[in-house]
Amino acid sequence: MSFGALATHSETDTRTRIVETAEKFFRHIGYQKTTVADIAKALRMSPANIYRFFESKKAINEAVAERLMRQVEDAIGAIADEPGPAEPRLRRMILTMCSMNAALYTDSVQMHEMVEHALSESWGVVHGHLERKGSIFTRVVREGIESGEFAPGDPTLASHCLQTALIRFFHPALIVQCAGEPGPTVDELTEFALRALRHGGAA
Amino acid sequence: MSFGALATHSETDTRTRIVETAEKFFRHIGYQKTTVADIAKALRMSPANIYRFFESKKAINEAVAERLMRQVEDAIGAIADEPGPAEPRLRRMILTMCSMNAALYTDSVQMHEMVEHALSESWGVVHGHLERKGSIFTRVVREGIESGEFAPGDPTLASHCLQTALIRFFHPALIVQCAGEPGPTVDELTEFALRALRHGGAA
Repeated sequence: MSFGALATHSETDTRTRIVETAEKFFRHIGYQKTTVADIAKALRMSPANIYRFFESKKAINEAVAERLMRQVEDAIGAIADEPGPAEPRLRRMILTMCSMNAALYTDSVQMHEMVEHALSESWGVVHGHLERKGSIFTRVVREGIESGEFAPGDPTLASHCLQTALIRFFHPALIVQCAGEPGPTVDELTEFALRALRHGGAA
Repeated sequence: MSFGALATHSETDTRTRIVETAEKFFRHIGYQKTTVADIAKALRMSPANIYRFFESKKAINEAVAERLMRQVEDAIGAIADEPGPAEPRLRRMILTMCSMNAALYTDSVQMHEMVEHALSESWGVVHGHLERKGSIFTRVVREGIESGEFAPGDPTLASHCLQTALIRFFHPALIVQCAGEPGPTVDELTEFALRALRHGGAA
């Protein structure tokens, strides 16, 4: 291993430590109240050193948000990789996203604040997540269509319809706004959407 | 007619004129920039006289928002009352809501500002609208279930699922945020949701 590779490895470590430390601060005292100086102090680094890795607090927030979103993608990706029919996998993927989202957005006011910032300021990061999440869903919907579990059709369109039909349980703002409002449970809406996947075309 | 009835009639007129004038101001110069004094001046009234009818600018905004929402309810209610099968009526109700929403939320930055205020400050008014809109949808879904067009089931649940599945095209914040994003068109998502209504239970 060359010294160059060592240096790179160590830089990745530092980046990860900054992101992990920032997440702890955001979680406990909130995004607004956390300063780059707080993060630097906790890591016994100078703020200038932090700025070598992230040009702004917003950039740190993006890295924290991306890390949390990757955890959701990893969890649903692992379910998508399991053997067996598509439908139970989709159900588990949906419920897993719901429980991870609840932990992120509704159980903690601080994390919700961080997510709101990411949604309004860092749409690129959110976009990447939506694309990766979308392609995992599309893969399982395609398998269900190919196995005859779901009606024939365009897997991408069917998967987009499924995800959009469930947006009330996936979108952070709606999760918070619709909590306690009348309407279907996630199980009821999932059942409704799966019926649409199972059955094709016009009446 | 007694003088009392005349007085009440005239008060209703004044209330309506205030709401109509406020809507014009909100539409042209925006909610934030409009003052109660502007509305009073346009009506050749004193601000004190306006405050006899509405206790605050927020209360005027609520009346403007409610009036716009009633127009949507009237439009979809008229379609719901038409004869014929439930499915084409639901399609027309959905498209009518979409085009009226677009006119309200996306075609005019000023109206969107007004709606945002109503959504964040006057949830009671929005609630009333959602309930009235919901019961119109449920009535048509019930007729479709009774005629055998849709699968047997609880009409209220089926109607709630239909409306929630389409929330991406009904919710002002999502209409704005999702515009230009990948995803199904309103026609594609409507077709998806109607398939779920047509077909019952498990596979």
